[in-house]
Amino acid sequence: MSATNRQIRLAARPVGDVEPKDWEHVSVPVEAPGPGRFAGRTRVISLDPAMRGWLDDRPSYLPPVGLGEVMRAGSVIEVTASNHPDFRPGDHVAGTFGVQEHVVSDGKGALKIDTSLAPPSTYLGALGMPGMTAYFGLLDVGALKEGETVVVSGAAGAVGTVVGQIAKVKGCRVVGIAGGPEKCRLLTDELGFDAAIDYRAGDVKRALREQTPDGIDVYFDNVGGDILDAALTRLAMHARVVVCGAISQYNNATPVNGPSNYLSLLVRRARMEGFVVFDYAKRYAQAGQEIAGWIGQGRLKVKEHVVKGTVDDFPETLRMLFRGENVGKLVLELA
Amino acid sequence: MSATNRQIRLAARPVGDVEPKDWEHVSVPVEAPGPGRFAGRTRVISLDPAMRGWLDDRPSYLPPVGLGEVMRAGSVIEVTASNHPDFRPGDHVAGTFGVQEHVVSDGKGALKIDTSLAPPSTYLGALGMPGMTAYFGLLDVGALKEGETVVVSGAAGAVGTVVGQIAKVKGCRVVGIAGGPEKCRLLTDELGFDAAIDYRAGDVKRALREQTPDGIDVYFDNVGGDILDAALTRLAMHARVVVCGAISQYNNATPVNGPSNYLSLLVRRARMEGFVVFDYAKRYAQAGQEIAGWIGQGRLKVKEHVVKGTVDDFPETLRMLFRGENVGKLVLELA
Repeated sequence: MSATNRQIRLAARPVGDVEPKDWEHVSVPVEAPGPGRFAGRTRVISLDPAMRGWLDDRPSYLPPVGLGEVMRAGSVIEVTASNHPDFRPGDHVAGTFGVQEHVVSDGKGALKIDTSLAPPSTYLGALGMPGMTAYFGLLDVGALKEGETVVVSGAAGAVGTVVGQIAKVKGCRVVGIAGGPEKCRLLTDELGFDAAIDYRAGDVKRALREQTPDGIDVYFDNVGGDILDAALTRLAMHARVVVCGAISQYNNATPVNGPSNYLSLLVRRARMEGFVVFDYAKRYAQAGQEIAGWIGQGRLKVKEHVVKGTVDDFPETLRMLFRGENVGKLVLELA
Repeated sequence: MSATNRQIRLAARPVGDVEPKDWEHVSVPVEAPGPGRFAGRTRVISLDPAMRGWLDDRPSYLPPVGLGEVMRAGSVIEVTASNHPDFRPGDHVAGTFGVQEHVVSDGKGALKIDTSLAPPSTYLGALGMPGMTAYFGLLDVGALKEGETVVVSGAAGAVGTVVGQIAKVKGCRVVGIAGGPEKCRLLTDELGFDAAIDYRAGDVKRALREQTPDGIDVYFDNVGGDILDAALTRLAMHARVVVCGAISQYNNATPVNGPSNYLSLLVRRARMEGFVVFDYAKRYAQAGQEIAGWIGQGRLKVKEHVVKGTVDDFPETLRMLFRGENVGKLVLELA
């Protein structure tokens, strides 16, 4: 173990794309855990589209990451020393520990995980925030019913892969929208989606018309922009549009491109609703058990995109996310 | 009674603003009512923002008005001759009878009204579609609760004046958005709104910040465009945006300006929902009774803008609506 803790801190607020100059790479001494605290070494770090929003200085569901602060990130650490009664050396713990090699925590918001059930990375994906987001977004906000037609954008991503597979478990017709033939093949050939639309290949509106003959009952949106607009033209009566994210818009230096076709909400007596997964914290355990069950039965396949490296690789790995280069949950695994 | 029936028919599909050339003024012989039918003379014709949508050839909640067809409009007629058991000469009847002087009907969708309770025009306004729209939009779609903050745009219009006054009956703080000082004075001085914002006078976003210190719980949108976008910046947690219309966008020859700030639905765990009042037809009678009660108690003031003329004045009167020249419900009363 090195005597220094390498950290990635926010150096400047990005305008548009996040650039290398927006980050500061620093080394600080490793801290020893005080009374009631434990120390750990970071094993795997989560990379999430929501991170882009945390970098902007504007009110949101979480305060922005401060300039000079360690970048906020979910991660799994391995406990190395502990003065905390609930955590022992060797334990694996998930929490919002930030982009750094070494962590000291009082245990608030930390969750001991069972690595015999699933590897640490899965607790950042299908059994972590993305899985919870898919589960509550689809079933609670989307109020999904058996036999309905579900369309999900960003379908090959951490949330999208789980959304589509839960919808299949629930007996729905599922159409995924993703970028490129490789991702589309994954959706239909490996994850059991009924159809996949490559938004880079042509007219999404026309493809949706072909693939959703009865219209869309639940549209789970991770991307915003033109794809959201195309989906709005295909809403079935009383459809639900779940606003989960808008990755196509996060790096805009210009105002967000609002959905021009929002008046179809009126014609179709439909609703568009946003949510933040943290509001469901009390039900995470129950949802996690249900998802773990589906994984165990082979009905939900975990897709992860693991980049191996050091915390210094975080900035470049984050860019992969906004270029759509990952398939499934993107994580950075530290050597 | 003249021997001819003057009608206004759709001659061409308007692009952008509706122009005189889009209408055809024709005279046809007055029809006699056949078996099971009645004839009537039009007394008052409704002018509604929704009419603009009916002129476009695209799928919506009603089929478009066909080229060469009599313009669709709600009206109140007085029965002049009848072979129908439920309607007698002298009866006043509301229905979708179109822009014409004389009507023959089989009674389908026709509703006998009591002109001793309210004048015919009110059955096209507070006791007609606009009143029903306000009632079900606010209470059902908006799920309004006592003590909440309500903002309504197009506040001095047929729907807006009723929305704001129902919200006051329900013990809410009510802010209306309207164009010009005269309309704003009407809202606060006569109709009991807590505040009015003149969107022509300056920064709506700033004014909303001042007038909704606790945010907006229900935003009832009649206008779309920049005002919808401003309201989205002020949503309270779990807010409801009721999409009733978008009069600012109806005459656009370009695509609708979508709400750039729709991602506040996510941050605020809010929803935006559309509706069509016809879906509530089975509950019209109950809602009408409740509204009539509030009118009787002086808690809901009926605002009507009556233009007196002939059916030939319909095209110019409709333009008043899109120029925002009416205060309250706009009707054309035939001499």
